[in-house]
Amino acid sequence: MTLILPVTDSAHNSAARAAKPKHYGWPGLIEAYRPYLPVTATTPVVTLQEGNTPLIPAPAIAALIGRDVRVLVKYDGLNPTGSFKDRGMTMAISKAKEAGAEAVICASTGNTSAAAAAYARRGGMRAFVLIPEGYVALGKLAQALLYGAEVISIQGNFDRALEIVREMAVNYPVTLVNSVNPYRLEGQKTGAFEVVDALGDAPDWLCIPVGNAGNITAYWMGFCQYHQAKKCSRLPKMMGFQAAGAAPLVTGKPVSHPETLATAIRIGNPASWTQAVAASEASRGSFSAVTDEEILDAYRLLASQEGIFCEPASAASVAGLLKVKDQVPTGATVVCVLTGNGLKDPDTAINHSNNQFKSGIAPTLDAVAGAMGF
Amino acid sequence: MTLILPVTDSAHNSAARAAKPKHYGWPGLIEAYRPYLPVTATTPVVTLQEGNTPLIPAPAIAALIGRDVRVLVKYDGLNPTGSFKDRGMTMAISKAKEAGAEAVICASTGNTSAAAAAYARRGGMRAFVLIPEGYVALGKLAQALLYGAEVISIQGNFDRALEIVREMAVNYPVTLVNSVNPYRLEGQKTGAFEVVDALGDAPDWLCIPVGNAGNITAYWMGFCQYHQAKKCSRLPKMMGFQAAGAAPLVTGKPVSHPETLATAIRIGNPASWTQAVAASEASRGSFSAVTDEEILDAYRLLASQEGIFCEPASAASVAGLLKVKDQVPTGATVVCVLTGNGLKDPDTAINHSNNQFKSGIAPTLDAVAGAMGF
Repeated sequence: MTLILPVTDSAHNSAARAAKPKHYGWPGLIEAYRPYLPVTATTPVVTLQEGNTPLIPAPAIAALIGRDVRVLVKYDGLNPTGSFKDRGMTMAISKAKEAGAEAVICASTGNTSAAAAAYARRGGMRAFVLIPEGYVALGKLAQALLYGAEVISIQGNFDRALEIVREMAVNYPVTLVNSVNPYRLEGQKTGAFEVVDALGDAPDWLCIPVGNAGNITAYWMGFCQYHQAKKCSRLPKMMGFQAAGAAPLVTGKPVSHPETLATAIRIGNPASWTQAVAASEASRGSFSAVTDEEILDAYRLLASQEGIFCEPASAASVAGLLKVKDQVPTGATVVCVLTGNGLKDPDTAINHSNNQFKSGIAPTLDAVAGAMGF
Repeated sequence: MTLILPVTDSAHNSAARAAKPKHYGWPGLIEAYRPYLPVTATTPVVTLQEGNTPLIPAPAIAALIGRDVRVLVKYDGLNPTGSFKDRGMTMAISKAKEAGAEAVICASTGNTSAAAAAYARRGGMRAFVLIPEGYVALGKLAQALLYGAEVISIQGNFDRALEIVREMAVNYPVTLVNSVNPYRLEGQKTGAFEVVDALGDAPDWLCIPVGNAGNITAYWMGFCQYHQAKKCSRLPKMMGFQAAGAAPLVTGKPVSHPETLATAIRIGNPASWTQAVAASEASRGSFSAVTDEEILDAYRLLASQEGIFCEPASAASVAGLLKVKDQVPTGATVVCVLTGNGLKDPDTAINHSNNQFKSGIAPTLDAVAGAMGF
């Protein structure tokens, strides 16, 4: 809907100002799903208009399954800081601001630190990130640093960093925004709402990468809440996929030294273990492991056949779907969650593309045509 | 709107399949703006659901201007491949496919090559990228390579590469998708449509980075077309900003050796020179130059105050706005276009953050609290 008013040069009288819209298009997920979230009219909403990410048909993946199965990917890498963490962080930071916090803190070397920094700074708060000394290359933190995060590296391991940020939050006016922050999952559950809103109902299967197990927990919360609100007529099977070197929910016991190139899910003892198992059981879903090679194959397939560039960890959902494809009911609708943007991890792209690169070609039409196969 | 049907386990009878929606939420810009685009019912639409990018209020930037000026940024870095190029590429690739092309080609080392590769592969076509030997680090092409681009480096310079891709398109069944492809601008003009749709009218000013000058030309096309369709009541002043070391539209003559760290606008002889000047004059706008330091200041400001991470070239629009802020009418609405995602250029983030990094801190609560300033 647009207002049609006479042309005027005066900004004061312009249609745009007269209309004074509170939002400009999609308002961000808190405003979009306010009735389903623990916010009040006085909660200061800190938003970058996160959410509303595309649900993109993946016909090449569907063709590998056949039997009229429909596959779509929820491309959450198109959130403002490049990952699904923004969904939780708009909630966590808005609630921190509501509580009067002047700073937030987390122990993270990846997507959480970037999201925490962006939202905290937008909300006028300081953002502290604690990391173990020597644990991470500066490049991994470049995004958080540019957002204005204050990074502190301690002479201790990651577990010690986690202990200290928890103690900081107890003893100082600093809000902890690691995954133990309960508002994170509240925000993340909106991914399920968006899937239902776009499809018109829940999918048959939801395939999702599982590391700390917060996102599978949050999606299940979202589907259940929407089901209770009669926004969907059914609940999906929750199909969780872990990297083979970091698959505690598959083996049933914590992994001391998790290993996978899918760093975003390299977690040996998931924080949301119990809830994730409950979601899997209630939905009659399952947990399975995929190897790094399977993850990389899916990562390349998504990029080179579907035109979608995701983080390696994200591709675990597609790798998993393809691994158990014979279990997919004929004609089913399957949604795979892609949690992060491939641009977050340029090194993997450089090292694992098929690298169709020809150099030293003479600068002539014939030579180039020859190199192209004509 | 959701369908409420009885819960069922049968995928065949599920509500989602019964509804058979053709699209899932935002359908991509061709479907969204079909009446304004040169497509027909038989054009095969190749889409990644590009467009629909957020228009985000920038209160910290507005505060630097004061006088009740409202500033918003059009964050086109959230397009599927991370830049505004996707807007043009969905059109160019759809039309190439309609024409029966089996391959596309471009000479590009940046955002164009990534967008061309993603859309071409999604459309089932081969994507060739021609580059000058030794001109570019592999990292810059990693995204295109992962999308399945076939990269050919020639023993010649960039101008020669451009000549050869033009000749290839004339002599072989390959479609050229460099900026001379007319459908690119048709797609890009939808950025203006989205701004108007979100605001309810055109803004007073549109601030935009100018390199090859295609985007300023396309935005002006879009505003004019929407104005004729009575979708907006006025037209914005088009304020184009170039990097000082690559500012031919400011100086009035081509630059032989353009230099700026804002690589996406490092162009000495813009392809759309004439059209850009026409847009500027018709809108009573102007072209100005901003230094690399001003660009970096705006880049850091956007990230650390607004929580928005863009490419350095994108920040030229905000740097320019701040440079000429005394000319902004009181109470005006200003939109700054941010053309690309900051994740595209991790090196600049690493080298130019304020780098608030403290290392060697003892792993104790007191030491960390001290490092935080408590």
